[in-house]
Amino acid sequence: MREVAVIGTGMTKWGELWDKSLRTIFVETALLALKDAGVEKIDSMYVGSMSSGLFVGQEHIASLLADYLGQAPVPSARVETACASGGLAFRLGFIEIASGMSEVVLVSGIEKMTDVNGYEATYALGTAADQEYEGYHGITFPGLYALMARAHMEKYGTTREQLAMVAVKNHKNGAKNPLAQFPFEITVDAVLNSVMVADPLRILDCSPITDGAAAVILCPVEMARKMGKPVVKVTGTGHATDTIALSSRKDITWLEATYQAGKKAYEMAGKKPEEIDVLEVHDCFTIAEICVMEALGLVEKGQGGKAVEEGWTALEGKIPINTSGGLKSKGHPVGATGVAQVIEIVKQLRGESVERQVKDAKVGMTQNMGGSGGSTVVHVFEKE
Amino acid sequence: MREVAVIGTGMTKWGELWDKSLRTIFVETALLALKDAGVEKIDSMYVGSMSSGLFVGQEHIASLLADYLGQAPVPSARVETACASGGLAFRLGFIEIASGMSEVVLVSGIEKMTDVNGYEATYALGTAADQEYEGYHGITFPGLYALMARAHMEKYGTTREQLAMVAVKNHKNGAKNPLAQFPFEITVDAVLNSVMVADPLRILDCSPITDGAAAVILCPVEMARKMGKPVVKVTGTGHATDTIALSSRKDITWLEATYQAGKKAYEMAGKKPEEIDVLEVHDCFTIAEICVMEALGLVEKGQGGKAVEEGWTALEGKIPINTSGGLKSKGHPVGATGVAQVIEIVKQLRGESVERQVKDAKVGMTQNMGGSGGSTVVHVFEKE
Repeated sequence: MREVAVIGTGMTKWGELWDKSLRTIFVETALLALKDAGVEKIDSMYVGSMSSGLFVGQEHIASLLADYLGQAPVPSARVETACASGGLAFRLGFIEIASGMSEVVLVSGIEKMTDVNGYEATYALGTAADQEYEGYHGITFPGLYALMARAHMEKYGTTREQLAMVAVKNHKNGAKNPLAQFPFEITVDAVLNSVMVADPLRILDCSPITDGAAAVILCPVEMARKMGKPVVKVTGTGHATDTIALSSRKDITWLEATYQAGKKAYEMAGKKPEEIDVLEVHDCFTIAEICVMEALGLVEKGQGGKAVEEGWTALEGKIPINTSGGLKSKGHPVGATGVAQVIEIVKQLRGESVERQVKDAKVGMTQNMGGSGGSTVVHVFEKE
Repeated sequence: MREVAVIGTGMTKWGELWDKSLRTIFVETALLALKDAGVEKIDSMYVGSMSSGLFVGQEHIASLLADYLGQAPVPSARVETACASGGLAFRLGFIEIASGMSEVVLVSGIEKMTDVNGYEATYALGTAADQEYEGYHGITFPGLYALMARAHMEKYGTTREQLAMVAVKNHKNGAKNPLAQFPFEITVDAVLNSVMVADPLRILDCSPITDGAAAVILCPVEMARKMGKPVVKVTGTGHATDTIALSSRKDITWLEATYQAGKKAYEMAGKKPEEIDVLEVHDCFTIAEICVMEALGLVEKGQGGKAVEEGWTALEGKIPINTSGGLKSKGHPVGATGVAQVIEIVKQLRGESVERQVKDAKVGMTQNMGGSGGSTVVHVFEKE
């Protein structure tokens, strides 16, 4: 397999983009990525999108977007695994370059979520849960993650305040990210007094509904070395599945797919958790970030909350997590999230993160998760 | 890139499977494919599905199906490019083996279309057209293909009877396929007197709404040689895109994406159109098969109708097309179709097609198409 590098990134401001359509936000970000990479023509394209069918009534977007970018007839594939669709698109783009099939691949993620109302958006997101055994009973994702949070609190003594601190930390980072949907700081008190969604999770524990896209350009490392920019290599990839129904798991505080995907990615990169300098992880709810830290082996089982409280994951901490603001502050256009995570890590490793730059970042990781953890995609990146 | 072979196939009877759920029909076919291949464990999985979100309210099916097959935590990816989703899943499975990333990959296609009513199914299918520029005006696929048919008749003199002969030929083949949804013969008169759907296309020009799944197992050719069955290699793959809006094309009788994908696949396999012994092509409407024949270079532009009339594409003809019965008779569970096409070709090259066996078939081709031709995936197969 050939070595693969990321040579370009493109992202625009996320939020409620009512004046833009799916194709518009895609083209804007893809053009930025092409410009950043210094290439005009691609060989192939991947688009991660969870449910363009339910959100905007449009399937077949891989061809639609290739055409609007002026790249047809190149091959273009849409891939989906709920909220990990962007990470999966990146993985398949990686495999395509590694195989020798293509030289320059554009990977994008996109979701236009605010063209439907809140009820419809909640329904669409709920299709990532097991509709026959979970959705049927009326539960949606805040409820599923609330069960995980309550179980984690009971089993490990994780506190309500520790959950809030995840959101506070991510908003602190997001305040330094001009592309974030909610680029401002919040306090623990604000989280604890915000509207209850599903006990113990309140509105400020939840990532928002967002319109947004993100795009990156991949090529073989040998080609990247000639491009005149710091070379960021993809040295590990892992993808794993678990039951999508929470009720089928042995332990609802443990993210087995994240553990398995992480294990593969660490092994492939030849890295250990303590060697990762900066991470973007899937904080769709505050509890998720805590469970992910544990499943990736960054802390012991049950110690995620405490580590957050002690500041380990802050920008200047031992293991900076979600320097972009995470899903919580940056926004969570579900299919785009995994690709935006890659962008943040590439910028950190290139030293382009300005106010939120992690000093001497050489090794980064992304963890992108679908549903309540039924799918996870993990990547390791290294600055050459 | 490593050479890739198909070592197992699995398919069950297609039709209105109201007593079975999405996960059930998937597991049934996947188990058949594993049994046929003689393997129990896979490294990775791809699922082609056009719109499980709109048809059964369930996204995230890649993980769901991996779990129900007892294969979690293996990586599992759902891919979509409208009705070419199955062909695309096969292509990505091919790339994964070729890259060296995996040894045994299961590729499946699935669609459960009859759990919604006819209006909802037509809406779901319509999301493969450009919703903002086509769907908005109320046109659906029978209308789009009717425009193509009328233009082909005007430009090349293709007759209404020639269109009917495509359906008659495919039903004749399908009558020999016990897994087909409509395994019976029809006549030209029956087509010409059937209910009008969108002039000039009548109901017997249209492929049906179907529940169904199909699965195949891929591995490196070196491994396949040790399995004790005839080795069927995948020697060419091509995937291309075009505008998904018919109105944006220069010539609506010409399928550019099929031409481009075919060109790539022929070149990679080192084959010419006249060297293909048997084909499965995307006859979603009778006119589609005629346009595909022309775009794949099997006949001259405009000569598709005449070739059908002269029997070239019959089972015993010069270029047997859709020996399985095609989408018309076998059924068209949209995401499954591309994988079922592969199954038919593998069985033909293995010499397992019994009553519909093409004599001495050594080289086969599949052509799977999305929307009105906005995406196409073509593969070439050879018996070793």
